[in-house]
Amino acid sequence: MEKKPVGHFHLEAEQGRARAATLQTAHGAIQTPIFMPVGTRATVKSMSPLDLTTMGAQIILGNTYHLHLRPTSELIRDMGGLHKFMNWDLPILTDSGGFQVFSLASLRKITDEGVEFRSHIDGSRCYISPEISMEIQMNLGSDIIMAFDECPPHPCTADELKKAMDRTYEWLKRCDKSMTRKQSLLFGIVQGGLDQKAREYSIEQVTSVDLPGYALGGYSVGEPIHLMHEMLPNVAPLLPKNKPRYLMGVGKPQDLILAIDAGVDMFDCVLPTRVARNGTLFTSAGPISIKKREFIKDSRPLDEDCSCYTCQNFSMAYLRHLYTTGELLGYRLNTLHNLHFYVQLMKEAREAILEQRWDKFKSSLVWL
Amino acid sequence: MEKKPVGHFHLEAEQGRARAATLQTAHGAIQTPIFMPVGTRATVKSMSPLDLTTMGAQIILGNTYHLHLRPTSELIRDMGGLHKFMNWDLPILTDSGGFQVFSLASLRKITDEGVEFRSHIDGSRCYISPEISMEIQMNLGSDIIMAFDECPPHPCTADELKKAMDRTYEWLKRCDKSMTRKQSLLFGIVQGGLDQKAREYSIEQVTSVDLPGYALGGYSVGEPIHLMHEMLPNVAPLLPKNKPRYLMGVGKPQDLILAIDAGVDMFDCVLPTRVARNGTLFTSAGPISIKKREFIKDSRPLDEDCSCYTCQNFSMAYLRHLYTTGELLGYRLNTLHNLHFYVQLMKEAREAILEQRWDKFKSSLVWL
Repeated sequence: MEKKPVGHFHLEAEQGRARAATLQTAHGAIQTPIFMPVGTRATVKSMSPLDLTTMGAQIILGNTYHLHLRPTSELIRDMGGLHKFMNWDLPILTDSGGFQVFSLASLRKITDEGVEFRSHIDGSRCYISPEISMEIQMNLGSDIIMAFDECPPHPCTADELKKAMDRTYEWLKRCDKSMTRKQSLLFGIVQGGLDQKAREYSIEQVTSVDLPGYALGGYSVGEPIHLMHEMLPNVAPLLPKNKPRYLMGVGKPQDLILAIDAGVDMFDCVLPTRVARNGTLFTSAGPISIKKREFIKDSRPLDEDCSCYTCQNFSMAYLRHLYTTGELLGYRLNTLHNLHFYVQLMKEAREAILEQRWDKFKSSLVWL
Repeated sequence: MEKKPVGHFHLEAEQGRARAATLQTAHGAIQTPIFMPVGTRATVKSMSPLDLTTMGAQIILGNTYHLHLRPTSELIRDMGGLHKFMNWDLPILTDSGGFQVFSLASLRKITDEGVEFRSHIDGSRCYISPEISMEIQMNLGSDIIMAFDECPPHPCTADELKKAMDRTYEWLKRCDKSMTRKQSLLFGIVQGGLDQKAREYSIEQVTSVDLPGYALGGYSVGEPIHLMHEMLPNVAPLLPKNKPRYLMGVGKPQDLILAIDAGVDMFDCVLPTRVARNGTLFTSAGPISIKKREFIKDSRPLDEDCSCYTCQNFSMAYLRHLYTTGELLGYRLNTLHNLHFYVQLMKEAREAILEQRWDKFKSSLVWL
């Protein structure tokens, strides 16, 4: 098969607003709908690259803010880039650092030029601008580079929202200018909060810059999630049809299904890995808390239908024992299962769309 | 090849006092000299069974004391035994609980009958006797069951030492009587501290009970290690030649080599796993501390000669990054490497003895 150029987006099937597609990156193609496990600090917590490829993960996400602070993007560049540093040969998407600057760092000072802040690790003074975010992500050698945007808090005033959108647009143009790495794809980020008109305004701004993909930012910032889902069917389809659509930082399994239904292609979220470490595990019958006493002598796997290493080899009683004793293997087996659940869910969603049985597939999800 | 009966010990080669042998257990044969990774709470910390078999581990150790407290041996028995509970199909040796009762528990009260103590977890009252230790280990379905002994502290008086030896002997006879599980092998434990005559006295007592293997206990309890090594060549060979000899709770790589040289066959120790989590890693050039600043941009593997997953896939710079950020993957990659180092060292020691080049092999170890 002829290798497609980097950025090539092939829309393979649509059913309603739901889509199945393939996006070419410098480290291979990814098939959408897709979930990207989050590898904040050059590692998906507790997972080896082999664990991730074995479960069928096709792309992971790295965090610019965290890698910029430790071990620094210059070090990773000097070590041959993020792929080589963490031994991951498949695609990597990096965020811009913007969201973390707004959620983790302290003493932020935002100007049109950029953002001054203090590190959440040691309080040291840091500065990120659109140009610096691009430089960091190019140092990392990311396949998909996210624009540096301003993500306003929820709630915020209409004026604050407009200022953030306009600044995001100005910053996007600067990102586009300074992102000079040919093998990388720059995605723009739409803001606009929970206001349909604002979203339309931001989409018009952001898509006026011709880019290989666009993302919806500014959701999952503390608002009731149903407000996002009410909007998404009227927002996602406004993004270019022939480009990938990425909903940032979302979410639970049902959120992914509803967003695919609204026309979204790509997802990332710390939720499956974070809650795994806290003992919440997703199954085809819905989520369970492995710490519960009812599992103390349960010799069954978490999910009879699951083909992951955890379910194929261990009982709920053993997983509960690992959890209650705080054993390291528990974090790994739980994480592995939850990520496998997400990856498998996206694979099945894709097959359903390709085979024009999306609605039937949705109906089969008892937890939806 | 004809399957040997459980307990069959085949002494394949000797060179000086060093030995290479095979011991048959109900879950297959183990080849000595051998190191047994410690799986305290039904898991070798951070390792999956697949990690362990991939590195060539042939047998692991489980801790009676810890498993008795959590999740209890009755629960593990009801779940099909320890092998099934933790999904480990190769041999398991369990200690008797004695050492942990003496080192971890509080408010111990030792009588000829048994030991009353309080759990280090919740302070609850517990009691272990020789009969109870056997029952717990039989519940676990252990392949090699260790006798319940009294391990006196270092230093102790000659009188205390003799009392502990005599009690250990009386307890051994009770263990032998109550260990009724045909598939399990009961090993006796020799005490005697750092006194040659006392060791000889204890060996005479313990070996008067005909058992499939014998262990040297009471070392590695705080004494200077060179005192043990001065004694071992005069102690280990006094144990029956046609039975496996197990030195409990020892030690560093050099300790294993010196003990093999003295005639020991089997080892266990938390050291390689514990120091791995603390960033100390064994290499063919000696141990290193991965946290050191000198490794910050070191793109080489830990050990160019090492075939483990860690060395085949990751740089020292990456391992240092995982260590300094406290990432879970770091614990695992470090543990995997250290255990691989121990397993490989024993494999090479065995081959050297089989090929009658033991002295040359020792000379090749630059860290010895």
